[in-house]
Amino acid sequence: MQSTRSVPQSDSPVESCWSSAAQLLQHSTVRELLKVTEQADTISFAGGLPAPTSFPTEEIALATERVLAHQAARVLQYGPTEGFPPLRELLTTLMQARGITIDSDHVIVTSGSQQGLDLLGKLLIDPGNPILVENPTYVGALQAWRPYQPRCVTLPLDEDGLQIDGLEQALTNLAREGQRPKFLYIVSAFQNPTGTTLAADRRTALIDLAAQHNLLIIEDDPYGELRYSGNPQTPLVALDIQRWGAPRHVAYLSTFSKLLAPSLRVGWMIGPDALLQRAVQAKQGLDLHTGSLAQAIAYEACCDGLLERHTPSIRQIYHERRDAMLGALESHMPDDVRWTHPEGGMFLWLTLPEGLDSAVLLQQAIVRNVAFVPGTAFFANGGGINTLRLNFSHPTPDRIEEGIRRLAEVVNEGVRG
Amino acid sequence: MQSTRSVPQSDSPVESCWSSAAQLLQHSTVRELLKVTEQADTISFAGGLPAPTSFPTEEIALATERVLAHQAARVLQYGPTEGFPPLRELLTTLMQARGITIDSDHVIVTSGSQQGLDLLGKLLIDPGNPILVENPTYVGALQAWRPYQPRCVTLPLDEDGLQIDGLEQALTNLAREGQRPKFLYIVSAFQNPTGTTLAADRRTALIDLAAQHNLLIIEDDPYGELRYSGNPQTPLVALDIQRWGAPRHVAYLSTFSKLLAPSLRVGWMIGPDALLQRAVQAKQGLDLHTGSLAQAIAYEACCDGLLERHTPSIRQIYHERRDAMLGALESHMPDDVRWTHPEGGMFLWLTLPEGLDSAVLLQQAIVRNVAFVPGTAFFANGGGINTLRLNFSHPTPDRIEEGIRRLAEVVNEGVRG
Repeated sequence: MQSTRSVPQSDSPVESCWSSAAQLLQHSTVRELLKVTEQADTISFAGGLPAPTSFPTEEIALATERVLAHQAARVLQYGPTEGFPPLRELLTTLMQARGITIDSDHVIVTSGSQQGLDLLGKLLIDPGNPILVENPTYVGALQAWRPYQPRCVTLPLDEDGLQIDGLEQALTNLAREGQRPKFLYIVSAFQNPTGTTLAADRRTALIDLAAQHNLLIIEDDPYGELRYSGNPQTPLVALDIQRWGAPRHVAYLSTFSKLLAPSLRVGWMIGPDALLQRAVQAKQGLDLHTGSLAQAIAYEACCDGLLERHTPSIRQIYHERRDAMLGALESHMPDDVRWTHPEGGMFLWLTLPEGLDSAVLLQQAIVRNVAFVPGTAFFANGGGINTLRLNFSHPTPDRIEEGIRRLAEVVNEGVRG
Repeated sequence: MQSTRSVPQSDSPVESCWSSAAQLLQHSTVRELLKVTEQADTISFAGGLPAPTSFPTEEIALATERVLAHQAARVLQYGPTEGFPPLRELLTTLMQARGITIDSDHVIVTSGSQQGLDLLGKLLIDPGNPILVENPTYVGALQAWRPYQPRCVTLPLDEDGLQIDGLEQALTNLAREGQRPKFLYIVSAFQNPTGTTLAADRRTALIDLAAQHNLLIIEDDPYGELRYSGNPQTPLVALDIQRWGAPRHVAYLSTFSKLLAPSLRVGWMIGPDALLQRAVQAKQGLDLHTGSLAQAIAYEACCDGLLERHTPSIRQIYHERRDAMLGALESHMPDDVRWTHPEGGMFLWLTLPEGLDSAVLLQQAIVRNVAFVPGTAFFANGGGINTLRLNFSHPTPDRIEEGIRRLAEVVNEGVRG
């Protein structure tokens, strides 16, 4: 029709209607770049994907067969917003194994832990509110919260995780402005992106500080079960419950994505009653409830101890891959490149010599069919130009060795260049 | 611990941290009341549940078996935010059958159409922005949007759906204030809650008005395939595409919830390019992507024409139930009670004599083990005290007859009382 051409694009009803949140959404050039690298011959350290060999496919297939044979009318129907009741019950047992003592009223099911982040942003952040985040931090949290327009106050990390004196300093600075942070966000074990874990003494100190400053902590724990060396750490929420008898200062997020399969999109949130109640009200507006078929599959697959049997095999796969990556870095990288030594999880963090730009490096790496995520995306307020994140859970040990060798060549050229 | 008791509840970190959106969330007394009625002996006209006998359980089980046997590594893994590519492709075919001509770039998968509503609210509404909604309208849309704090401008309905002159009047009134609505929201076929369908001439008029006023329309169409009598209507988005060559003024939402199973939580959104692009960016922050296993099941179940074979049997079940409800109302209700005569969908709408309060009626009905949803929840700005919504898709014809008989008794007592 003629009218198609006569109306300029800028006049479309959509272009004049964006909310301020929509205008803050960022087009991710890295995401676009990485799409190009999703070819079989690219060695990708970029994603955060579990190894496909880690999926308990047969158990998931059997669980699905059982729930559809015996409970179809229930598991195909709409379900409660709080979650599939047998799964909430089972989660109390799974959480007990992490030292977290709760009853099923203290846990709700979310559509991945990503939805937990969105829910908490919606419930807690008004534009301009200060929130405390690690520097660097999980980019998906920043993405979830950007539309709510917080003011991100960044906190320094080292190999033992969040620096407590940095946190105290930030709280003091905010108090001087007459401000209080809405919450502190922390990935407490094998952090995304750095792979570092909060040390035991810092955990105690953090729970003390939370009580002292009446601070809410969002503890994101997707990787805690994936430890390959070192000593297990007690989740912050467990310490919080030990202290107060129920969750008071910590909202805890976790997920089946790294233990069963990401595609189920089944996560959970533990937290103070009032927070969970409002989260359920808000979740109704988001998606009514998390898929009951996926929840029933997770329940049916795990109710007879699958995770206890299966998780060791995931740890074994990733342990080998982590060691392959650390070994390859040791063999190939120039002396002035540093990296973290994670005791678990899926990522490690590389720091290039000052003056190198990892985004430029990525373009050169892609030419040699190697990909990673430049570090800047993980810094809420900029910085980290010479850093990058490497994933070791998805590529095989051989591909890790080869990929790091190629990457070291590119770095060497960058250092010389 | 002593400290538990020494700190008053109001001092909890959560209670002092709510966002303004959280403070707008409403505790639904009706929802709580209806929880009580979820007992087997209650005849519930309250929910919006499909009949369990309408689920193609065997086909879903077979589809799951196939995708896990042949594509486990893909369908258990993280997937693209836009949706499972084969499903997006299939949706173009399914939409063609509704008269909607698109390619797969014009459709994205959402976690139920409820998530489409949340996404559109996030992308379009700033606090105080006017939006146009039917009066009454789908309560889930109001719930999704309340946190974004729109100003709802309500538009009158009759048995032919939205009244176009009412819309024109509202646009004029807003223009006089120097305002433009962010969008018009309409459930175009077998509306929830009234069961009415927008007439053909009003569809054309609406698309004309949208062009004239550069208005964006959100067309929500979960029930369009469920027609039991009367003539099929062309979706607004199809008319929009016919006019402009591509979606320009209409964002269209639909879902597998009423055709396959709600628990998959697989819906979709069709709309202008710019809108879908930002929706994908925003969706990343919400849940990364809709469960790929559920999407793969929907694809695998439907790729060989299941919906064409299966939907007639759903129509048959609901047709009988709708007729049972209309017949029972005719037999039992007093003369001064009015109700709509839907040509499809899952609901009809009852108007009691002025002066009766359907919330009071509900309490009396519950005593006789009958439940429904009082109408007020569906009115954005109040009203409708003497109205109520009845669902006819879930209860069997016998239970419908008995439930309406009991309800009529309660109404009769209310009229006499």
